[in-house]
Amino acid sequence: MIEIERKFLVKNDTFKAAAFKQNRIAQGYLSSVPERTVRVRIKADKGYLTIKGITNETGMSRFEWEKEIPADEAKSLLLLCEKGVIDKTRYEVKIGKHTYEVDEFYGENEGLIIAEIELQSETETFEQPNWLGQEVTNDKRYFNSNLCTNPYKKW
Amino acid sequence: MIEIERKFLVKNDTFKAAAFKQNRIAQGYLSSVPERTVRVRIKADKGYLTIKGITNETGMSRFEWEKEIPADEAKSLLLLCEKGVIDKTRYEVKIGKHTYEVDEFYGENEGLIIAEIELQSETETFEQPNWLGQEVTNDKRYFNSNLCTNPYKKW
Repeated sequence: MIEIERKFLVKNDTFKAAAFKQNRIAQGYLSSVPERTVRVRIKADKGYLTIKGITNETGMSRFEWEKEIPADEAKSLLLLCEKGVIDKTRYEVKIGKHTYEVDEFYGENEGLIIAEIELQSETETFEQPNWLGQEVTNDKRYFNSNLCTNPYKKW
Repeated sequence: MIEIERKFLVKNDTFKAAAFKQNRIAQGYLSSVPERTVRVRIKADKGYLTIKGITNETGMSRFEWEKEIPADEAKSLLLLCEKGVIDKTRYEVKIGKHTYEVDEFYGENEGLIIAEIELQSETETFEQPNWLGQEVTNDKRYFNSNLCTNPYKKW
């Protein structure tokens, strides 16, 4: 499957009032090499293993493979991960026909809030709420795999 | 799960007459870092994703996690793997109470034949057939993850 995503900074926390769902997420990387990232995630007591390829030249499209796995197995796999497990709350906010996933980070990435929207094509239009800030789709520092090794607080 | 294995070179191909099963295996690595190898394998039209931790100080025990996945998904994931996909035939040979897995390699590892035996404990005894050669359990060159990057023909 090819995933098409755009990513934005978030100006303030007014998005929280509009969220229809929120989940704490812990995730780490077995590989943070951009050509083949392997991510272990625990979200709402479920485990996930996700493998992504490199992004294309626009920075929007990426091969993605994901399998749900038992949470206790995900916990064992998190122990194997590279240093710098990510801790965040994901809010889901419906705006027009799309759902924004807004991640508020803790720990070494405290202070960072990022909104992501998944699109059907790279040219699809979408409504932008007033809390949406600068687009950072092409800024590799905001890749979660890079936030492990070079967290926001150290920038 | 912790996997306990010992590994040997094989002197000749007389083991083939005693094999009760044989399968062609193609495998690659999304991560070949010893602390967290992530392996994609296709064996007899089934796909597998396997994650292993680092071996302990004896070189025999290792954390291992494996899931069967659809073969077509494994094929997509093989395309993401690091260079140097391994191609081999695995013969299974029952000797006494144990089954040896004997891998005959092709391509860049042509000429190499390795037998592996899985044990319940590091001190368990086992019958050694006359085709079994030198033990190489602790020789990291024989790790499949290393045979990708530094194949036998280049030694």
